Amino acid sequence: MVATPKKSPLAPASFPELLAVGGVRLATAACGVKYLDRKDVLLGAFDVGTTVAGVLTQSRTASAPVNWCRKNLPSGQAQALLVNSGNANAFTGMRGRTAVEATVSAVADTLTCRPSRVFTASTGVIGEPLPAETITSAMANLTDQLVNADTPATWQAAAEAIMTTDTFPKGAAQSSRIGETEITIAGIAKGSGMIAPDMATMLCFVFTDAAISAEALQTMLSDLNARTFNSITVDSDTSTSDTVLVFATGAAGNVSIDSATDPALDAFKSALEAVLRDLAHQIVRDGEGATKFVTVTVTGAENDRAAKVIALSIANSPLVKTAIAGEDANWGRIVMAVGKAGEEADRDKMSIRIGGIDIAAMGEAIEGYSEAPVVEHMRGQNIEIEVDVGVTAGEDNGSARVWTCDLNHGYITINADYRS
Amino acid sequence: MVATPKKSPLAPASFPELLAVGGVRLATAACGVKYLDRKDVLLGAFDVGTTVAGVLTQSRTASAPVNWCRKNLPSGQAQALLVNSGNANAFTGMRGRTAVEATVSAVADTLTCRPSRVFTASTGVIGEPLPAETITSAMANLTDQLVNADTPATWQAAAEAIMTTDTFPKGAAQSSRIGETEITIAGIAKGSGMIAPDMATMLCFVFTDAAISAEALQTMLSDLNARTFNSITVDSDTSTSDTVLVFATGAAGNVSIDSATDPALDAFKSALEAVLRDLAHQIVRDGEGATKFVTVTVTGAENDRAAKVIALSIANSPLVKTAIAGEDANWGRIVMAVGKAGEEADRDKMSIRIGGIDIAAMGEAIEGYSEAPVVEHMRGQNIEIEVDVGVTAGEDNGSARVWTCDLNHGYITINADYRS
Repeated sequence: MVATPKKSPLAPASFPELLAVGGVRLATAACGVKYLDRKDVLLGAFDVGTTVAGVLTQSRTASAPVNWCRKNLPSGQAQALLVNSGNANAFTGMRGRTAVEATVSAVADTLTCRPSRVFTASTGVIGEPLPAETITSAMANLTDQLVNADTPATWQAAAEAIMTTDTFPKGAAQSSRIGETEITIAGIAKGSGMIAPDMATMLCFVFTDAAISAEALQTMLSDLNARTFNSITVDSDTSTSDTVLVFATGAAGNVSIDSATDPALDAFKSALEAVLRDLAHQIVRDGEGATKFVTVTVTGAENDRAAKVIALSIANSPLVKTAIAGEDANWGRIVMAVGKAGEEADRDKMSIRIGGIDIAAMGEAIEGYSEAPVVEHMRGQNIEIEVDVGVTAGEDNGSARVWTCDLNHGYITINADYRS
Repeated sequence: MVATPKKSPLAPASFPELLAVGGVRLATAACGVKYLDRKDVLLGAFDVGTTVAGVLTQSRTASAPVNWCRKNLPSGQAQALLVNSGNANAFTGMRGRTAVEATVSAVADTLTCRPSRVFTASTGVIGEPLPAETITSAMANLTDQLVNADTPATWQAAAEAIMTTDTFPKGAAQSSRIGETEITIAGIAKGSGMIAPDMATMLCFVFTDAAISAEALQTMLSDLNARTFNSITVDSDTSTSDTVLVFATGAAGNVSIDSATDPALDAFKSALEAVLRDLAHQIVRDGEGATKFVTVTVTGAENDRAAKVIALSIANSPLVKTAIAGEDANWGRIVMAVGKAGEEADRDKMSIRIGGIDIAAMGEAIEGYSEAPVVEHMRGQNIEIEVDVGVTAGEDNGSARVWTCDLNHGYITINADYRS
């Protein structure tokens, strides 16, 4: 039996008031995939004509559901989404593929659509066969319970059904405009809370009533994903199941947009980025054992790519993360993490700021630097680290921003002390 | 004040009986670089004609002593070694270079040799100027105390002088032959024990009485280093000061060997590898908070390089390391770590063994696999993980072996709970 996790100290006060998204119906159920009496399956049904875009884990040992989504994303057409928690259906060989086909076919039969238009994701333990029949046998019941996604309670139930050991359900919403048409975007995500020694997996599903071609949606998502979900890290361990899917139903009735560069999409793109970033930040805030939310900004790198490598080297360094846990303004460890990143850095031009306070410049500590205000900043919940690595400046400035949390006893307790 | 660290449970019972190495004289002193009443400086003096080879950190924020060694290694000639603990002299700008020049000149003046033949290393806190005068003022006294390196006590004192927060001094020795001549090799190292929030730095110095050209020595060292020190990891954080230097005095009187591929060096090369591997393992055994010594072997990769990337991905994964700390046979996390490594892996041909017991084959758990004997293995101090990633086999088999330790509360306590 697994202890109920204590809510992260960085959790938001309450689940946000998610907006109604036309063309989306949702249902949840407790199917007993792993735990009893706990919602563990989410079914989404979409209006005909819904487009879909997605980004999937780059893992070489990706799960069977990830393989399925990768195969079917090019069509850009979606009519359903099936998600289960409690079992990742990863490293399950031929049985994993069979389980995906069984569950997807059950959805397709009940909703009368092609299996290729059913998208699916699984999260939980790796290496155990997924008991597909626990899900297929509940399909008729699930379909009966589908309701329009127009109340906060419906969204919260959906967010809860995909949790594994998250300590709070994660949701975000934005309203926007395309031309004269009002558009809504709502998203849910899970990730990073873990008590049973499963995988830290990340799933995110975003729904909008906008009419947008799948190609335009995919171009936008790939771009925004790099700046949001691909810019967070809790422990540098990449899941076999990471999945972000965006569904656009078209129910808002705007003239459909076919190109990601169409200026009519500017406001929508900002709103979509805000939803993705909000959900990504919520995952960091539920990082295992997290007590600090950390923003790392790197400037002056060879280019943006190099800046991101350096920023992630800082954000993933166990020594930097334990120093933050200990509220220790140990900037020497930041120097180390820049050095090991392997990207160009001009040691003798580097500068470091923590909490907006200048600590080092031109490759050494600032004469007369006082640690007291930095220590005060380290005691807070939001830690800001800024490093300029001195290789570029001005217009050529290579920069990146990533988000992470501290590494403390909570992480070890969650991942080592408890047995499955 | 810093608490005295408890000796690692993986420490050897006692310091090894290091052998006499002709042509090497050693002295140590408590100079008060950082702590009082603690040996913190080591001086080594070598016979004229001693050759030297070295490998240095790849960090882009390397320390001033590392820069000095990199500049002077090409000559291949050494007459002295100066090492201090307590201060890394890293990220110290122009003052760092000045401090190196001052201490190296003091050694050169006292021993009457060129400064370029004095090699130096520093380990400890980053970003604080090195108080060079604490070392230069002790130089005459240090030189007076130089004694032949022919007793275990002398070697142990040397190993202790370079410790920072290591929990035990590290040494290893081998005797060998070149032609008919008996050769001895003795080495000392420090690294990985850390209570003050400094850097986990690694230093290693090896001494032999063999006559070998600097070029041959460098070729051998670069090759052996890849299989020893560059195959260990405690926490994936690369120091600004990592330094391995090998000094060959020629006092044994063998006919000098000029080529690393000369068959006369075969036995010597094996002995040198044994010393380097032994010292590398001792550093892992003193890994911060370590309670398990872990060997990760990867086979079936695209090539040896790819195998090493995958092996290090497993050995550096916080989720794998916390599972080992928790004595949890959580092989799903090994699957994850293989997947995230970014190298070719054939998920559906992969196999995994822990403690010699087959767990998974052909990309899924073995039917009827019993966890009990694996759990028994996980309870021991020496953990063996073997993964075949299924891309190559037979003669083309790409393989690698790396060593690490577990990640547990001890690591967090050492790096977060204590303040400098």
